[in-house]
Amino acid sequence: MRPVGVAVLGLGNVGSEVVRILNDSADDLAARIGAPLVLRGVGVRRIADDRGVPTELLTDDIDSLVSREDVDIVVELMGPVEPARKAILSAIAHGKSVVTANKALLSQSTGKLAEAAEAARVDLYFEASVAGAIPVIRPLTQSLAGDTVLRVAGIVNGTTNYILSEMDSTGADYASALADASALGYAEADPTADVEGYDAAAKAAILASIAFHTRVTADDVYREGITGISPADVTTARELGCTIKLLAICERITKGGKQRVSARVYPALVPLTHPLATVNGAFNAVVVEAEAAGRLMFYGQGAGGAPTASAVTGDLVMAARNRVQGGRGPRESKYAKLAIAPIGDVQTRYYVSMDVADKPGVLSTVAAEFAAHEVSIAEVRQEGVVDDDGQLIGARIVVLTHRATDAALSKTVAALAELDAVQRIASVLRMEGTD
Amino acid sequence: MRPVGVAVLGLGNVGSEVVRILNDSADDLAARIGAPLVLRGVGVRRIADDRGVPTELLTDDIDSLVSREDVDIVVELMGPVEPARKAILSAIAHGKSVVTANKALLSQSTGKLAEAAEAARVDLYFEASVAGAIPVIRPLTQSLAGDTVLRVAGIVNGTTNYILSEMDSTGADYASALADASALGYAEADPTADVEGYDAAAKAAILASIAFHTRVTADDVYREGITGISPADVTTARELGCTIKLLAICERITKGGKQRVSARVYPALVPLTHPLATVNGAFNAVVVEAEAAGRLMFYGQGAGGAPTASAVTGDLVMAARNRVQGGRGPRESKYAKLAIAPIGDVQTRYYVSMDVADKPGVLSTVAAEFAAHEVSIAEVRQEGVVDDDGQLIGARIVVLTHRATDAALSKTVAALAELDAVQRIASVLRMEGTD
Repeated sequence: MRPVGVAVLGLGNVGSEVVRILNDSADDLAARIGAPLVLRGVGVRRIADDRGVPTELLTDDIDSLVSREDVDIVVELMGPVEPARKAILSAIAHGKSVVTANKALLSQSTGKLAEAAEAARVDLYFEASVAGAIPVIRPLTQSLAGDTVLRVAGIVNGTTNYILSEMDSTGADYASALADASALGYAEADPTADVEGYDAAAKAAILASIAFHTRVTADDVYREGITGISPADVTTARELGCTIKLLAICERITKGGKQRVSARVYPALVPLTHPLATVNGAFNAVVVEAEAAGRLMFYGQGAGGAPTASAVTGDLVMAARNRVQGGRGPRESKYAKLAIAPIGDVQTRYYVSMDVADKPGVLSTVAAEFAAHEVSIAEVRQEGVVDDDGQLIGARIVVLTHRATDAALSKTVAALAELDAVQRIASVLRMEGTD
Repeated sequence: MRPVGVAVLGLGNVGSEVVRILNDSADDLAARIGAPLVLRGVGVRRIADDRGVPTELLTDDIDSLVSREDVDIVVELMGPVEPARKAILSAIAHGKSVVTANKALLSQSTGKLAEAAEAARVDLYFEASVAGAIPVIRPLTQSLAGDTVLRVAGIVNGTTNYILSEMDSTGADYASALADASALGYAEADPTADVEGYDAAAKAAILASIAFHTRVTADDVYREGITGISPADVTTARELGCTIKLLAICERITKGGKQRVSARVYPALVPLTHPLATVNGAFNAVVVEAEAAGRLMFYGQGAGGAPTASAVTGDLVMAARNRVQGGRGPRESKYAKLAIAPIGDVQTRYYVSMDVADKPGVLSTVAAEFAAHEVSIAEVRQEGVVDDDGQLIGARIVVLTHRATDAALSKTVAALAELDAVQRIASVLRMEGTD
């Protein structure tokens, strides 16, 4: 049987693990595919003999590697958007199927890549781009292909989940929890992509695209990071029976018979009884709600070399099977072409905490402002604020609302900030998972 | 575009929901497939106008329906092994792809059905046969196709999980918890298939087959039901920080370089900290442990018309896409041909509870019997047993072992039963999920 040739681009944690699996499980993979998988070359920036791969397999000439006649499938694990985009488009143009974990690229260019793959009649698989080892893409595109997905909500970034778990369990502030995450290798030197929610937003775009058969790019995703979360927020969350999680949420919003898609990333209060509340540390989980299936949850390791390599190799075996047995994997489905709902139209519950003057009538003034903007209050608490010597220096009001639009809430908060009685809006957080 | 013709066999809860989805989501399904899905007929035992389907679509002539020229895919939801087997084989022989949820049939005849599908070059999909709406088959066959699955452990029977959850939360005995389950429609008039573990064993056989690329039938699965679980077992489980769950376990056992498969179903103590411990009521969950992926968990509704119909319709859309776009779904993979390990070779931990004479030396005699069979004791408790009037009438010894083979434990229990000091072996239960 003619072997299936594989080129791997990138030899970091994930690439090294993929190469290891190709070696260690060669017989099993061949039996599952019906032909041997043969590694033709590994594209790297630096060729050296300490890379764990025979030097003759290494090349820094990506262009030549992806166009080799004996390469059938290109596995792209280089990371940044460029030169990955160029390499993938070149591979597709040369008739190679592509497996990638590149969420940043996919969330910018999913349409362009999908169209190129369609034109060349090759496969484009990307299970590893969201939630590492956890099968999420395949269940959404295939298992739920006959159902109507209503909502996808996930913890899809391990770095921020580690930081928030740490803040929750130790009372640490954001800076020291981030330092811990860095020391343990859970956060990169420049943590911006993770802590500002860009990574989660890229994944939200991918999930929304496949769940709702609509092209959603990272730019369509509303995004807030976790850098503003304070120990006081975490404490208040606990008092409300909640924990704070950075959520990626993709939702089908139906209003007046018209359907739109909301995709958003932000830290939110999650009730401790919700399945996502118990997902701690570097783990990921995705909850899918569909009309017929009800609520499903997928849980596991969302990052790391070996778990991500598991997802990559699964895709690789599927692409190879298609080469050997004929046929192709699922293609882009974008027929629904739903509009993107702006964040202002999205309804959630909110928690607003503000420092106020400690005098009569403040609570009623604050409550009136919520009412004026038609934001209904579910729960309100007022407590004294003391200084380090225990002297009462003011008061804090915490309001938990019923569901309201983001637009109404924003106007309410702006109006509250103008009130003489309100010294400072300390925190505004959304609450999810209580429906 | 030529439509894809569908025949549905069986119009129970699931069949009715599938027909409803085909109607209500016709436009979406057509867009996803690239051609309309058209219901050609529904095979039933009784034709009547109260079935929610136009009478002209109903037929009791299954043979004619599955061989119709304009039928491309047959969805088998009739239930029992026969006449389902005959109908499926006839459909395949006529070149139809088949979607089925029939676990009993699959676990008896997976090889025969797969071979027929292979010979006819048609698809055979069965996602709905295990854990209802929860994608399990597809993640195992596709997403983990590049990984090495070590273990699959699941709660895959909602009836028994409801009964055990009820016993745990209310202290009810087995008979009254079963009566509750029946009243709520969670248990059938004859609950044998559920409570004796036959249903879970069929699912274990299917899971083991695909996880380990080996044909495993229901007869290969060791099986114990839950009818012997007493309120005292539940109480003791709680005292040990555990709950009792009926587990389906499929495990790769490596010994002396030789690999074998163990597939088994039994009630077991599960630590409350284990993810499966929190799966209550009629829900299902499957935990998969793979070499590279680590531990994954899939959770959701494991039964019911709509959830099961979601899985069936997902398969139906995939089979239809293959018809329209060319190609076929994954086929049976049985290359590994691992031997089945007998239950005697399986290692787990055990909890043994026995009534003993309340006199000196009994504990040491009992402990010596464990030692003689090389079963190591992890924890032991001795307590007094009192009658209804509070009179001390004997003692009970509860032993929790370290991991030991089932064979060694069986010999130990047999030897204990022979001891004069032991009046009665009250309970022997396995403990899982502590590694």
